[in-house]
Parts: sequence; C-alpha cells; structure tokens
Amino acid sequence: MKLIKYIACSLLLLPGFGQAQQEVPTYLDSSKPIEERVEDALSRLTLEEKVALTHAQSKFCSPGVARLGIPEFWMTDGPHGIRPEVLWDEWEQAGWTNDSCVAFPALTCLAASWDPEIARLYGKSIGEEARYRNKTVLLGPGVNIYRSPLNARNFEYMGEDPYLAGKMVVPYVQGVQQNGVAACVKHYALNNQEVNRHTTNVIVDDRALYEIYLPAFKAAVQEGNAWAIMGSYNLYKNQHGCHNQYLLNDILKGEWGFDGVVVSDWGGVHNTQEAITNGLDMEFGSWTNGLSNGASNAYDNYYLADPYLKLIREGKVGTKELDDKVRRILRLAYRTTMDRNRPYGSLCSEAHFAAARRIGEEGIVLLQNRNNLLPIDLNQAKRIAVIGENAIKMMTVGGGSSSLKVKYELSPLDGIRKRVGDQAEVIYARGYVGDPSGEYNGVKSGQDLEDNRSPEELIAEAVAVAKDADYVIFIGGLNKSAHQDCEDADRKELGLSYGQDKVIAALAKANKNLIVVNISGNAIAMPWVKEVPAIVQAWYLGSEAGSAIASVLTGDVNPSGKLPFTFPASLQDVGAHKLGEYPGTPRNDGSPIVDQKYNEGIFVGYRWADKEKTKPLFSFGHGLSYTTFAYGKAIADKKVMGQDETLTITLPVTNTGSREGSEVIQLYISDLKSSLPRPVKELKGFSKVKLAPGETREVTFTIGKEALSFFDDTRHEWVAEPGKFEAWIGASSTDIRNKVAFELK
Amino acid sequence: MKLIKYIACSLLLLPGFGQAQQEVPTYLDSSKPIEERVEDALSRLTLEEKVALTHAQSKFCSPGVARLGIPEFWMTDGPHGIRPEVLWDEWEQAGWTNDSCVAFPALTCLAASWDPEIARLYGKSIGEEARYRNKTVLLGPGVNIYRSPLNARNFEYMGEDPYLAGKMVVPYVQGVQQNGVAACVKHYALNNQEVNRHTTNVIVDDRALYEIYLPAFKAAVQEGNAWAIMGSYNLYKNQHGCHNQYLLNDILKGEWGFDGVVVSDWGGVHNTQEAITNGLDMEFGSWTNGLSNGASNAYDNYYLADPYLKLIREGKVGTKELDDKVRRILRLAYRTTMDRNRPYGSLCSEAHFAAARRIGEEGIVLLQNRNNLLPIDLNQAKRIAVIGENAIKMMTVGGGSSSLKVKYELSPLDGIRKRVGDQAEVIYARGYVGDPSGEYNGVKSGQDLEDNRSPEELIAEAVAVAKDADYVIFIGGLNKSAHQDCEDADRKELGLSYGQDKVIAALAKANKNLIVVNISGNAIAMPWVKEVPAIVQAWYLGSEAGSAIASVLTGDVNPSGKLPFTFPASLQDVGAHKLGEYPGTPRNDGSPIVDQKYNEGIFVGYRWADKEKTKPLFSFGHGLSYTTFAYGKAIADKKVMGQDETLTITLPVTNTGSREGSEVIQLYISDLKSSLPRPVKELKGFSKVKLAPGETREVTFTIGKEALSFFDDTRHEWVAEPGKFEAWIGASSTDIRNKVAFELK
Repeated sequence: MKLIKYIACSLLLLPGFGQAQQEVPTYLDSSKPIEERVEDALSRLTLEEKVALTHAQSKFCSPGVARLGIPEFWMTDGPHGIRPEVLWDEWEQAGWTNDSCVAFPALTCLAASWDPEIARLYGKSIGEEARYRNKTVLLGPGVNIYRSPLNARNFEYMGEDPYLAGKMVVPYVQGVQQNGVAACVKHYALNNQEVNRHTTNVIVDDRALYEIYLPAFKAAVQEGNAWAIMGSYNLYKNQHGCHNQYLLNDILKGEWGFDGVVVSDWGGVHNTQEAITNGLDMEFGSWTNGLSNGASNAYDNYYLADPYLKLIREGKVGTKELDDKVRRILRLAYRTTMDRNRPYGSLCSEAHFAAARRIGEEGIVLLQNRNNLLPIDLNQAKRIAVIGENAIKMMTVGGGSSSLKVKYELSPLDGIRKRVGDQAEVIYARGYVGDPSGEYNGVKSGQDLEDNRSPEELIAEAVAVAKDADYVIFIGGLNKSAHQDCEDADRKELGLSYGQDKVIAALAKANKNLIVVNISGNAIAMPWVKEVPAIVQAWYLGSEAGSAIASVLTGDVNPSGKLPFTFPASLQDVGAHKLGEYPGTPRNDGSPIVDQKYNEGIFVGYRWADKEKTKPLFSFGHGLSYTTFAYGKAIADKKVMGQDETLTITLPVTNTGSREGSEVIQLYISDLKSSLPRPVKELKGFSKVKLAPGETREVTFTIGKEALSFFDDTRHEWVAEPGKFEAWIGASSTDIRNKVAFELK
Repeated sequence: MKLIKYIACSLLLLPGFGQAQQEVPTYLDSSKPIEERVEDALSRLTLEEKVALTHAQSKFCSPGVARLGIPEFWMTDGPHGIRPEVLWDEWEQAGWTNDSCVAFPALTCLAASWDPEIARLYGKSIGEEARYRNKTVLLGPGVNIYRSPLNARNFEYMGEDPYLAGKMVVPYVQGVQQNGVAACVKHYALNNQEVNRHTTNVIVDDRALYEIYLPAFKAAVQEGNAWAIMGSYNLYKNQHGCHNQYLLNDILKGEWGFDGVVVSDWGGVHNTQEAITNGLDMEFGSWTNGLSNGASNAYDNYYLADPYLKLIREGKVGTKELDDKVRRILRLAYRTTMDRNRPYGSLCSEAHFAAARRIGEEGIVLLQNRNNLLPIDLNQAKRIAVIGENAIKMMTVGGGSSSLKVKYELSPLDGIRKRVGDQAEVIYARGYVGDPSGEYNGVKSGQDLEDNRSPEELIAEAVAVAKDADYVIFIGGLNKSAHQDCEDADRKELGLSYGQDKVIAALAKANKNLIVVNISGNAIAMPWVKEVPAIVQAWYLGSEAGSAIASVLTGDVNPSGKLPFTFPASLQDVGAHKLGEYPGTPRNDGSPIVDQKYNEGIFVGYRWADKEKTKPLFSFGHGLSYTTFAYGKAIADKKVMGQDETLTITLPVTNTGSREGSEVIQLYISDLKSSLPRPVKELKGFSKVKLAPGETREVTFTIGKEALSFFDDTRHEWVAEPGKFEAWIGASSTDIRNKVAFELK
C-alpha cells in the first residue's frame, strides 16, 4: 500500500483504449462540468425518453437512455444492508447466490453510538456493498423523528432528537456517496407511524415542522449533500408526501436548494397532476398493475408514464416540470454510474463485518447495572443460563423492506457460546415462544422455530435452568414480526408480548444475578425494572449481533451507547398519545383520509417529559459504563455573545474508574425567557470521548446563534432572541452535571 | 461535439470524490501496470477464492472477489446480438423488459461483405450493446471453418477460407474490445459439425490443422488481441477441446503466446484433472447439477470447484496451474470491468439498427441475374407477388444459443411492402409450411405460424397469385428449426425441405420473372437453378432483414456481397463427404467416442473443387452486381521476390456499367511446384472497391512470404519454398481475370 496521487493514476490510464484523442459529445465528456453535460443530454432526448426516465420499469429499476449510453438506475433497500435481488416484476427473491450481504445494526443503534465517525464508517461500508452490487441509489437512511414508541419503523430511524439525527445522518450520507452511490434520505416527511400510513393527513404547526421534523432532512441535504430523498406515504396539508407542494417544492427544492431527485416511496404516488407539478422526480412501486388503458405493460400505467405523456401531447401540461425532473435524474447519473472515478465497492469483506460489530459495540446501551453485576466475570462463572427466544432468532429477516439475506448472522446465544468457550457451561432455555417473522409484500421472511410447549412448561424449564446458574441472561424484546417492529404494522402496546414479563419475573425470583438484554428498536415497558439488576438495550445488531452482545456482556468492550430516545414510563407520558391524536381520526365525509393533529407540537421526546415533568423509565441520552466519569466545571469563553459570534464552552472530563471507557458528554441549551413557548432544554452539542483510567480530557463545545434559535412561524424564519440562556452539560438529558449562564445580545 | 483529449478529461475528473490523495492498494491502483496489479491481487487471494474464480456461479456468471471489490464476470451469447437475461440457474428467460437488442446479420453475411471495416463496425456496435448490458465477455465471434454444408452452425461462422475468416475476425474482435468487453472467439478448435458434437474425436493432419482450421483463431489472438477464447465440445487427440494439451497449452498459449482466458463451452468440461492441467481457465455450463458430493449447490460440483479444491488440499495437485488461471482471469477484469476508461456502451441506438442494415446490404449476394431481371423496376411493376414462409418468419429466434429477443425484426415481406409503398400492389402467399422454430435448452423459441392447408392447396394459391404478377419473389430456404440451421442438429440433406423445390418449380412455370431469395447460413441444392432467372443469397439478416432485402431487390443498394463458401453441386462434391468420414465412425470398444478422420486434409471448400475439378453450383468468392467491372492488366513490382521482401501487385479496375457499385477483387496464390501437395490456389488478398459509373481505381495487393508458405508438418514450421508462383486476380475463385507470374528466391 502506498500513497497514490489520483493525478498520476489518471494520466497513466490514458492508453486504455489506444485513442489519445476521440470525438466525444459533451454529455459523455468527463472534462465538462456536470451541468453542461446535463443540458447537452437533455437536448438529445425525445419526449418519450424523458417521460420514461421519470418512472420505474421493474420493481427496483428505472430506465436510462439505452441508445445514448446513459445507464439504468437501480435502487436498493435498505438502510441496514443491501436487499437481495428480486424478480423483475415480482417481490419474490430471484434466487441469485451472489447477493448475500453484511447486515449492519439498525439505525437506532447507530444513533445510540452518538459518534458521527461511526456513522461515516457505517455509510462508507454499506455504500461499498451497494456499489459492488451495482446499485445506483441506496434507499436510506431514515431520519423520521421518534414520536411514538408504537411506530413500527422507529428501528430504521435515528431517534427523537433532530440535532442528534442531523449530526449522525450527514456523515452516513457522505460515507455512502463517496462510493458513487446515492443515499436516498427517507421518508420525507412526517411519516411517524405505520398505521394508516397511506391515508394519514398530518396536521402540525410550522414550529414543530421546522424545529423537530425537518432539521435532520435539512442537514442531510445541505451538509450531507444527499443526492436523493424519498417522499413519504402520508399526507401533509392534504397532499401525499410524494407529491407535496409545501414539502417538496417550497421547502426542499425552494428553501433548501436541493438539486437531487425526489424518489417516491413504493406505491406512494396517487395522482398524475400532483406528481407532475408538486416536486416528484422518479415514481416507483405504483399499484397500477391492474389498470388497463391499452398500455402494453403495467409500468406504462404509472402516474408519470402514459397518463403524463397524454397530458403533454394534448397540450394540457407543458414540459417545464418534465425538463426539471429529467435534469435531476441526469445529474444523478453523472454523480453515480457515470462518474469514472468511483470505487468498485466490496461485499462481505472482513472490514464490513468488523464495522458491523463495532457499530453494535458502540451502540449497545447499558441501561442499568446494580451492584456492578456486569460485566460477567468468566473467572468466577461456572454456569451461565441464557433464556429467551431472541437469543436464537434471526433478526435480519422480517421487519418489512429492511429484511435481508445475510452471509451470516451470529445469534446472541452463539456469540455468547463462542466468547465463553470452555470457560463456563452455557445452558439455553427458550422461556417463551413468539410469532414467526412476518410476511411482507407476499414474501415470507424469517424462520419458524416450532415449539408446542405451554407457557408454563417453558417458564418451568427456564427457571430450572436459571436456578443453578451463576449468571442468567434473558434475551428477549421485540422480533420484527407484525406489531413487533415491522413495517406496516405498528405496535399495539408498550409492553412486551408473549408473556415475557412473566418469564423475567420468574427468573428474577429464581436468581438474583439476572441480566435482561432487550432486543428492539423501540422503548418497551419494564414492569420488572426493580427486580432486575442489569438491563442492556441491544437493538437489532445485524450479522455480528452475537459478537457485539458477548463483547459487552463479558466486558471485552466497555459499553458507551446512550439512548437516542426516551423510554417513557407509560404511553401516557408520550405527547403523541397524551395530546397528539395518535393514530388519527377518520374523516366523516367518506374519504379514506385519517387526520392526525400533532397537538403536542414541538414537545416530542424529552421535550415533552421536561415540560410535563414526568420521570422516564430511562431518559434520552442515558447510558452507563463499566467505568465512571467525573465532569469538571464548565467554563464559557464569554458571558455575552453577539448575534454573529460563537460561544465556546470547555470542561474537563475524567475517567474515575479502573478501566478504559468512552463517555458521551451532552450539551443542552435552555432559553430562560422567550416570546414563544420553548422546550426546557434542547440538545445542541455532544462529544464522545475515550478515556483511559485516570485520564482527563478537555471537552469543548462551540455554538453559534443557530443553537439558540427557534422557528418563528409568524415571520417564517429562525430567530435567536436576545436574552439569558444556559448551557447545560449532562451525561444524559436528566443527569445534568453543570450549567453555564450566558447572554445573547 | 469537439475533440477532447483524454488527458484533459482525466485531469478534470480528479475532484470526483474530493480526495486528491488516497491510499490505494496496488491491485486497485490504475496507475500501475496491469501485470503488477494482477500479482498484487493474486497475493491477496485465498485458495478458495482462487478456485471460485475458475468456475461459474450461475448460468452465465462467475464470481469476482467480492470482499476485494473485483467484479463478477458476466458472459453473454452470442455473436449476432446480446442474449436476453435468463434466470440465475435456469435457461428460462428472466422476463426483464430492458434486454431487447438489435439483431445483427449472421456472421456468414458479415463474411460475405468481404469488408474488414464492416467487421469493425459490427464488432463496435455489438460490443456497445454488450457494454450497455454490463456484460464482461461476448461469446463470439465464431470462426470454425465451413467444412460441410450440413453443419448446423455454419451460419455463426465466417466461411470456408482461413484467410478471409482471419481478415474479418480481427477487426470484429477489436471493435468489440474497444468497449471494454472481451470477445471470446469460438469454438476452438475443429468443431466443424453439430452431430455427435460432444463425442466426435477429430483426426486431422497437422497441415490441415495449421493451414485450414487454426489461422483465423491465430489472427484473432495475435492480430486482434482477443482477451478470451472458447474451447470446443469435440475431441482432438482424444482430449476434449476445453481441456486439450495440444490445442490450448502447446499451440494457443505456447506457440501463439495467448495471455487471455480459455472459457469452456457450456457443458464442455468432462474431467477435473484435464481441466486443471490442459489449459482451461473458466468452466461454465457443466452438467453436474444432478451429482451430489455433499456440496451445497450445483456449482460446487463443477469439475474445477470442490473436486479441484479437494485435490489441492490432499496435495495431489499443486497450485501452479491455479495461479496461472487466476492471473488470466484477473487480467480479464483489468481489461474490462476495471478499466476506468471504457465507454458506457449503448443499446438499440439508431446507429446500431443502421449498422445492422448496412452489414446486411453489404453481405447479400446476387447469385444469378439473367436478363437483368433485378433490380425490380417499380416504375413498371403494378403487382408483386411474394411467396414463401421465410418472407414472414422471424429468424432472430431459434437456431440455438444465438437466439435473440429483438427490439424489432422487420420481415422480408414487411420490408418489401414498406419500400414499395403504393407504387405497386404486393400480394403474399405462403407457398409451403415449415416446422416451428426449435427448442433449445428447454426453451421454446420462435413463433408458431399455423396453417393446416395441404401442400397442393398452398402451391395452387401461390401459383394463382404469381400468375398475374409482374414480379414473383420467392423467399424460402432454411429457418433455424432443428436440422434447418440450428445448433445441435445438423442438416440432413443439401436440398431444401418442406417441398420448397416443388413450389419454386411451379412458380417458375407460372411466371418467368421469378426471383428466389434464399435465407440460410449454408449452401443449398438448387435443382431449379436453370428455371429461375434471379437468385439472391440473403442469409439471416437480423433486425433489419426486410430493409436490407428490399434495398437490394429494388436497387436502392447495388449488391456487392460475395460467397464466403462454395455452393457445391452435390454433397459428393464436398471433401468432408467424399473422403472425410462425416459424420464419423463410432468406436467398437463401448466408448461413446466417434472418430472422424478429416481425410480430405487441406482440401476444404474451393481447394477441394479445384483439386477435383468439380464445377460448383456457385463458387467461393462469387457474387454479381447491377453494374459490371472490367479488370485491367495486373502488374507485379518485381519478378523475383526475396524471402524477406514483399511483392506488390497492381491492377486497374473500372466500373463499366451505368450505376455505382462495389467490387471485391480477389488475389489467389498458386504454387506451381511444391515438395508437398498444395491447393491449386489459395486466397491471399482481397479488396472491396466502390466505383462510380465509368470510374477506374488502382487496386494494390502486397504480399510477403507468408502468403506463399505452407505448413511443413515434418519440420513443424511454415515454409516458403523457393520457386515459381502465380498471383491470380479474380472476381471469384472460378472467375480469374488475370495471372501474374513471379518467383520466390
């Protein structure tokens, strides 16, 4: 390996085809700026070719311009790994043997790492897998805000806080796109639940829209330079997200200057006229197969296919919108498949499995650890009981469009057995039996693990196994079956299903050394929280699930993840449920639309808990370590900050324990007085610091006025009001160690 | 459009991923020579990865090295157009809608153009289609020598003469490969028939091997720099062509220095040990699906898969051969998918359809034109009768692996109708009913055109239609059904099937203005040759068949093709049938092997006719024009030629007719006395010249001693014996206009 200058590389490539000079049309001329090439290509296209570019030709592919050599566009689910190939026009897998992938941890886990460099590693790695598989667009990541713990797709998103999601999504997008693969940020916007997802009309005030639901998308677009964004299924202001004047034209393409493509969610387009005028660029997955208008195949029936052509030919719509769409689509080609410098990617490399493991290890959250039960002391333990179905269940299948075909997935049980080796006996009992993984789009995913014993028998076996063990590890939670973190099927309750609470309670009675590992992408209720000394939030961890969990449980890795969303004590402690009309109110006018007012407004997650002064089960930002950290006094570099100045806050953080560990230090801003209601505090900075035992480091946060601003919905602009503020430094949103007062002039 | 220097282009590409410098391993470093990159990549591979590279993972795909980013290898049939996508492990089409292609004329037609620039256009065009479809290797062209008119795949080859085939294959290969797609020249070697194709053991003397059967392959390798070659099904010296010490190791890789990959024909591998040691590099299509050795899928049963690994692991074979294979395969990747400069290709462009038409128009041969019946005079004709099934039958489906899914195919009838427009009435009668197109690999290809009338009824209808017409165009011939020019099913007779001769005879009686258009890739018998004034050999012409045929029939295009093989008067006038033991003699030892001695030796095609002094129906090199050409006196630049000198022969050729036309002037060399038997004459030069009416051009041929040489099988080298020679200049192999004597010192 050595340092290579691309310049040398490019020069030496010249003799490739033995032609030093060649007549190259502008659209194929890599020396020309992309915009010139786009215009040249555009000028060569027929009306029919332009319209063809705007819609799919198969489940996941849209045409290029074959006669001109502009490549096709191949999309792929999803945010956690590259979906296996499906048949041309069916959801069924195509039976290829070259499309197994690495499953990376779910995005909630990534968010829980609170480390943008881990997000970059994630994006780079999954982007390499997409590139090797010759995909143009990766349909992810998702940054819909965690509004309710019942939302079935929260596991695909990055938590409840717009600042955290924004900071994590940017390097993910950049990492993907450095492979010449477009990231397609989704689902834009306000797609905060799965129930009624195609018919929910979200009614939300502008403050919540701009302060809570849009910032992560804006960061992905403006800082991450995302080349694609996916419209959402739901409606906003009575227009579907995939053709929405306000969200797509006014905000995304207008206010934010987005120059990429708006891709529909699959089946998210409902109206040709709106699809033409309201900002959609590429239509996929429309359910028009059954329609017949004389067209030769289903894709000709798409809203942006023959119906669009017809309107243009009849002079009912012009081609201004079409040319805009096509420019964006051509730009996408130049950024991806037609970029001669893009890497070749790689698939299932050791580096990718290592990345998957590392992301998992950085994201696992130690929620509770009384009496330092964890890490497991393998020098003492002779017998370890592992209980629970999630210890053996594949979690990379099921859940909907994020379902994968992995090269391998190490289960938690296998991971523990592998790590423990012959240092102790590992005994397994199932404890409970869940649903098999769900069906999605007609394809059954996941394995059936049959077991016909009664719950009582299962519990009796588990208790018997647990009684004699030095440690009992219960591994349960949700499982990506319908209503258990699975697309299109919101959860029905905050609590665990399948009688797991009973199993845990029985185990807690049987053995005091009980560790509960919760696998989920959502908060759960823990009626047994006081009876269980150690609780670990382990997410959906992908291919290396077992390795990452075993590392943390045995202390090979010191946990450092922090919750990216609140674990509420009950659903009534969630704004969306207390005030917010989840899951919505059907109209009485015969329309299928279900209105849903986000009455809680900007008070989502910890903002709601702070406002209502409720005590969460576990707070946003919470996460323990096997070591301890002391926060020194925070100092601001000024007391008064001008509107165009920055403020820098510094504090020393010390590892006061006996082993290396990483701490996520969080900065919240509290506006002491405001003309509009504001949250008690809002996250505006964080820093993950790795410290050796006894080591101290200075942690620095620099903020500008944007950290102090709110969205003034009357003036339709961000405003930082002069006055008194405080910077709160905490180890979680409820573990504030330090406050620094300052004033904005 | 403007001239672009690649250097500028490459420099400006630099900021692509915003990294001016980046650590790049040698194998990914485009600035390094390919051989260095090959060695670096090789050094990173595990034994299992190396073995995986040597065999298929699906019907048409072999793996790359996913973890290292070395792309997969995608093969595609065939020589005439890019085969539609099939399912991963089945021959059935995958039902994609983006894989329709342009069908170019069959290679016999290309050879009949006698124009290397047309071959370059062909290669460039089909290579662009392969590149757009993301194929790594095009399985073609074929240059097996036309030995018998019964060989079912002659239509995929370039005729009976090694010099003509060699001159045509080189620019085809170069044209394909300038797209970064490898040409895979096939079927190497001695695959001269389809009957018993897997079991025929060819016994041929070294002179015929080197002088007749190998030169086109050698030219493809040494002048065309073909990156791949396909082993043949048959045996030679009791070894199958796909693992043949003599052909692959000794000659191809040894004598010729071939550094590309030897790809097996599908199902052409039969023995692991021979596949390891005898020169095969990539195994495809083996019929090992039924075998079970504990391997998880059929491809692990391939001869070069688990059985190879096992031998290596047991120490029974070393890894020297493996490393050689892998080096070649890696080299293929660097030449194709990993060449950053390769173009993007294009599919179904206007230019490709125009190329298909032009190749057809250049290759159609006017065999006979008494009384200048052709071209059709549309100013006089009121009524044109078109008779015959081939006027309406799709010829791009059927025939075996060259079967295609075309964007469109213009039938001869539709082409004629389109051209004639309302200038005359075009009436069609079927005349006869042939077989539906055949099945191949379980997939039925081609349309059924049902017609339950008796032959007598069909003839009566045809005669009735013909009687009143100003012109009668019979369009028949072969049709790519089994035994009618179709892979795996040799023809059973020289004559036409389905009673076509009776139809033609009846038509000739009914109307003196009869034109027979023969669609075939083979010579046919013409018992009606004296009764039919005009005969056109129109080949399988692909997508633009109807356009090309109509152009020639109406005189829009002046025909200029010349036969690339002899039309013998009978099978007994063919060496392979008179002496050559076609189709071979089964052994009496219970083995499936069928020996076949090529007793005719070097006397193939016109060489046999010359030797036997038989009069062909139509001679090699024959083809008429709508104009006439006068050959002036040929002059040599010297009388005596040294061994290292060249000889230049010049003659004026004049268009003595009244319309523009092209003439193929042919140079044959006759060795007047030789120590070994030699053909009366051999083609050693040709030139296609386009002349305006009255225009004269000097035509020049320059030859070296290689044109005078024969292969001395005792000395195993090419020898040019001093002595007297003659250069014969002809309009065909039997229409010699000029002879120039000279002497080699």
